[in-house]
Amino acid sequence: MTDIALLGFGRIAQVHAKAIASGNLPINVRAVADANPDARAAAAQLGAKTFESVDELLSAGLELDAALVASSTPFHVEHTTLALDAGLHVLCEKPLSEDVQEVRHLTELAAEKGLVLRTAFNRRFDPLFRDLKSRIGTETGPVRSVHIISRDPFPPPPGYPRSAGSMLRDMTIHDFDTARYLVDDDIVAVTARGTGTFDTDALAVGDTDTVFLILEMARGTLIGIDNCRATSYGFDQRIEVHGEAGTLHAGNEALPQATRIGAAGFTTPRLVDFFPTRYAQSYIDQLSSFGNAIAAAKAGAAPDDIAADGRDALQALQAALAGWRSIVEGRRVTLEEVE
Amino acid sequence: MTDIALLGFGRIAQVHAKAIASGNLPINVRAVADANPDARAAAAQLGAKTFESVDELLSAGLELDAALVASSTPFHVEHTTLALDAGLHVLCEKPLSEDVQEVRHLTELAAEKGLVLRTAFNRRFDPLFRDLKSRIGTETGPVRSVHIISRDPFPPPPGYPRSAGSMLRDMTIHDFDTARYLVDDDIVAVTARGTGTFDTDALAVGDTDTVFLILEMARGTLIGIDNCRATSYGFDQRIEVHGEAGTLHAGNEALPQATRIGAAGFTTPRLVDFFPTRYAQSYIDQLSSFGNAIAAAKAGAAPDDIAADGRDALQALQAALAGWRSIVEGRRVTLEEVE
Amino acid sequence: MTDIALLGFGRIAQVHAKAIASGNLPINVRAVADANPDARAAAAQLGAKTFESVDELLSAGLELDAALVASSTPFHVEHTTLALDAGLHVLCEKPLSEDVQEVRHLTELAAEKGLVLRTAFNRRFDPLFRDLKSRIGTETGPVRSVHIISRDPFPPPPGYPRSAGSMLRDMTIHDFDTARYLVDDDIVAVTARGTGTFDTDALAVGDTDTVFLILEMARGTLIGIDNCRATSYGFDQRIEVHGEAGTLHAGNEALPQATRIGAAGFTTPRLVDFFPTRYAQSYIDQLSSFGNAIAAAKAGAAPDDIAADGRDALQALQAALAGWRSIVEGRRVTLEEVE
Amino acid sequence: MTDIALLGFGRIAQVHAKAIASGNLPINVRAVADANPDARAAAAQLGAKTFESVDELLSAGLELDAALVASSTPFHVEHTTLALDAGLHVLCEKPLSEDVQEVRHLTELAAEKGLVLRTAFNRRFDPLFRDLKSRIGTETGPVRSVHIISRDPFPPPPGYPRSAGSMLRDMTIHDFDTARYLVDDDIVAVTARGTGTFDTDALAVGDTDTVFLILEMARGTLIGIDNCRATSYGFDQRIEVHGEAGTLHAGNEALPQATRIGAAGFTTPRLVDFFPTRYAQSYIDQLSSFGNAIAAAKAGAAPDDIAADGRDALQALQAALAGWRSIVEGRRVTLEEVE
Repeated sequence: MTDIALLGFGRIAQVHAKAIASGNLPINVRAVADANPDARAAAAQLGAKTFESVDELLSAGLELDAALVASSTPFHVEHTTLALDAGLHVLCEKPLSEDVQEVRHLTELAAEKGLVLRTAFNRRFDPLFRDLKSRIGTETGPVRSVHIISRDPFPPPPGYPRSAGSMLRDMTIHDFDTARYLVDDDIVAVTARGTGTFDTDALAVGDTDTVFLILEMARGTLIGIDNCRATSYGFDQRIEVHGEAGTLHAGNEALPQATRIGAAGFTTPRLVDFFPTRYAQSYIDQLSSFGNAIAAAKAGAAPDDIAADGRDALQALQAALAGWRSIVEGRRVTLEEVE
Repeated sequence: MTDIALLGFGRIAQVHAKAIASGNLPINVRAVADANPDARAAAAQLGAKTFESVDELLSAGLELDAALVASSTPFHVEHTTLALDAGLHVLCEKPLSEDVQEVRHLTELAAEKGLVLRTAFNRRFDPLFRDLKSRIGTETGPVRSVHIISRDPFPPPPGYPRSAGSMLRDMTIHDFDTARYLVDDDIVAVTARGTGTFDTDALAVGDTDTVFLILEMARGTLIGIDNCRATSYGFDQRIEVHGEAGTLHAGNEALPQATRIGAAGFTTPRLVDFFPTRYAQSYIDQLSSFGNAIAAAKAGAAPDDIAADGRDALQALQAALAGWRSIVEGRRVTLEEVE
Repeated sequence: MTDIALLGFGRIAQVHAKAIASGNLPINVRAVADANPDARAAAAQLGAKTFESVDELLSAGLELDAALVASSTPFHVEHTTLALDAGLHVLCEKPLSEDVQEVRHLTELAAEKGLVLRTAFNRRFDPLFRDLKSRIGTETGPVRSVHIISRDPFPPPPGYPRSAGSMLRDMTIHDFDTARYLVDDDIVAVTARGTGTFDTDALAVGDTDTVFLILEMARGTLIGIDNCRATSYGFDQRIEVHGEAGTLHAGNEALPQATRIGAAGFTTPRLVDFFPTRYAQSYIDQLSSFGNAIAAAKAGAAPDDIAADGRDALQALQAALAGWRSIVEGRRVTLEEVE
Repeated sequence: MTDIALLGFGRIAQVHAKAIASGNLPINVRAVADANPDARAAAAQLGAKTFESVDELLSAGLELDAALVASSTPFHVEHTTLALDAGLHVLCEKPLSEDVQEVRHLTELAAEKGLVLRTAFNRRFDPLFRDLKSRIGTETGPVRSVHIISRDPFPPPPGYPRSAGSMLRDMTIHDFDTARYLVDDDIVAVTARGTGTFDTDALAVGDTDTVFLILEMARGTLIGIDNCRATSYGFDQRIEVHGEAGTLHAGNEALPQATRIGAAGFTTPRLVDFFPTRYAQSYIDQLSSFGNAIAAAKAGAAPDDIAADGRDALQALQAALAGWRSIVEGRRVTLEEVE
């Protein structure tokens, strides 16, 4: 059993809590810190001790193994630092930070202390993407290009923190990481264009709601990304790996509904609604892997290498910053430029 | 160039005429016989000589190689006999006859005269079904069962000749032939149930509009047929061959339309409307094969063996008669019983 | 919390136990009876008290609400009777019995005692089939026919109890129930043909491995069933409801794998392997419904009406017996004939 | 009947000749000019008068309505000019020219003489793309983005004329035109990245074989293009229009082959091989439209507006030149920059 604390108990923390329950994972949610009383009440129902602040939780003398940082993005660095300082392994929701130097600092801090520090790029654990990755090479031959379509079903709710370029740091960041993960390669440069036509909250802060990006990888592969903040048809997550000997296509998951055949043609079911459903298994497997990594760390063994570490967080962040600069300046921007 | 006469110039004859034109076939429609002045006018536009009757056409001293009998079903035997007596090779629309003895007689007559006699089971020439047939065995291993779904888009027009059991002799007859053709085997017995709920013209004469049939083949294979006189979605033609090592599924052809993705899911295009579109290529290839068979006959060579001959017409007719008796008597009926 | 005992802890009982765990159901598996020491050891790991016999379990003075009868088929009647006599609500695996009179007797016994008696026709709870059923009528208009394809991935293991006709009582029985459930109608007559070519254990006892059946429903609808004991491609479960205004097709679920596109075409993933995966959610929902029915019974309220009761068990059994007689006698057999 | 001359009788000219035959078009191929004796022999078989040069043909005193310029790209301008000077309407294969000023000049020349001048952007006439275009707006609402995947089955043959950027002028040029046609808008800027890994002939002249492009349209829409000179699976032509109210997806056409279902999953047929098959109907409809435009011109009426005129040729050429400059310079390039 791994004893963990959840730092923050909003929407994403509850996705993790549900994963622990439905996956029958050997993880015990001992404590939850959240300033919001409703969140604490919900956490208490799970049997966790609740605290108003992270400080309070960490000084309560609980025997904890790890912290899952699921607070809102501006607190990720502070809470991760506190947890590492308290000797806890950390799984931090993405983005670890929106500042390149802070990501570097946290990565070094964890390494010094011999603690596991992971960023929650959960899609690496998605069974479909794992299947896809495992077949690249043997079934594709040399990869000619990759194309990722990633569209949210609807824009973030009012009040969600936004700023110019935050679409790339918040949404596309998953795709940057997926791109690197799939082809086991680093991003060298990003070329991007963006528009904004419907997400008025985003437009008000100078952000976009629709972007196309072209990534250049270190070994020369081009990876295209097609992102949009909304669709009329659910959560759209497709990846196509185009190779010399074969092409692999990871498509969407549909709801369990019958196809209707009529005068208008064939109507097949709509897609699952959003990430908690589409990526449900990945949340379970990510936590299982985190538990294993902690056990491995205790035993002095190397963890599995599927999960995203600090360097992965850094590359994804740099790609997001480079992408935004590319949109603004109308040119290709290298990751080296956004140190 | 093969010089042919069309005996009858109704709907199905015009499908053949269109096939000759669009396939650039080396077939010359020299003459057309039809009692209907409008039909003759349409035929004249194609450059054919027109006659009011088959007798008149056959006694006009034209140099013809063959006749395509496309008159209405009750005239098939008479026109086929006249053509054979005139020394012409014959491709007769299905059914060759609705009487077992007449089919036997015509087959013998053609054999005596050394003439080609074919029934227009055009679906044997369908590229999809040919692909399917060519892969049975190598890709399926031993066949465990076959299932044929065949549904017309709408019932026959008012005035179309009907009688009790005519659905089997007119529509299912194609599927009986397809079943035999695909697995290269004869039908031993038919077990069937039928209902009628919507085709009031059929019901008025004691016929059905919906039937399920189970064929037992000589080598033991079971073949299921699912027939209906109408759908809400076009012409439905599916075949599934279930084998020990693999299963083959021949699906429907859709119109060239974009898929719409929206809140209701994915709407893919409707099916092609009916047989002249779905089986367009088979009509071309059937005529091409007929031309080749005539050339082979002239040269004393054996024709290709894909086309349906008199024995094929006989088996399909017997299966239709046995199927109807099965519906009426509530029992399995062998083909031997319908001599 | 509902406290239940599992009577039998073989393969199917473990499917239920897993459903209780992964669904976080408010059901407590208090006790397990199984003569097999390995099964008892497995049950003990779940925290259940274990007993060598059902008698022993029922006389141990435990406070139980219900029993889930999951012993082997020949013991279903005995164990169900014992449980009802002990005042427990019962969910019995199918078939409740293979004898029509015994089914009637058990149904009456439960009614007398005011206890819930259900047969585990779990597919009624499948989300896809529930979606299908909910849309029949509004989206199909009057139903013209239904076609069910149900093929197991491989034959039962050696040692599985078999006899002439057991394929219908053991496998097709689910499809008989599904047919009735979908169109809310009773089966009047069954016409069937069967063959056996590969399942040598079945053939040794005079059974079949491949059957086609045609059901006639009380309101006249024809329902075709296509069953096979094995495929080369996994567990095949398809249903098509053909209606006047629209057709609904419930297809198969595929594994989460990428499609490969290459010189041979498109290779999409294989199907999920077998019923514990394909129908996983239905096992959860069936138990949830059983728990609700017990709570309703305690409160004197009517249970939901989706689950199969004794009468449903009876009709499915009669259809299986009629189907087998039809295969043997080569004729349509009514359910009235198999009282 | 429209009497035309084919100027050039290579591969693409033969695609046009086949379209005239199989479509039964009212177009008479009166004359063919080609320096190659084999080409002339093939043309003679169609019943056309053959000439060694365009000059010879045009001075032979034939009564011609129009010329179809299908010579190799470097001769397009010369042959188009000769034909216009001879008073013939012209349908010129793409690209009309690789020089912006020449395109302008030819457009003005045709306008002065009151002659029809069209570029053979045949894909505008594809039934699937026409269906797609006709439904944009009503079924999509405001368009958020468009994505075009266009991949050739194999690189051009050895000897095909190439130079740096020719992939964009030769292959992508169709997609530039399709993009404009679909959303009825002009291209303002192009941002692109390209790589070359397998097409050694292209690499030898500094060209690419794989490109991603992002088009910015005048009304702000982003259009992504994904191009590759080869696949392992045939000719890949997909378009997705992502709109606020719905998304439309135009997919590929598959060969008429059965799906195989086995242990590896479902193998559906491969795509049609290349453009003469995939776009067969568009060649027929393009010529039909050209015939109608000539008839309209004779009658002083306006032609239909689906076909590509000189301005369309100009925009597509400019986009290709801008795209190449973007790849070379690593920045967004506007069409204004490539006057």
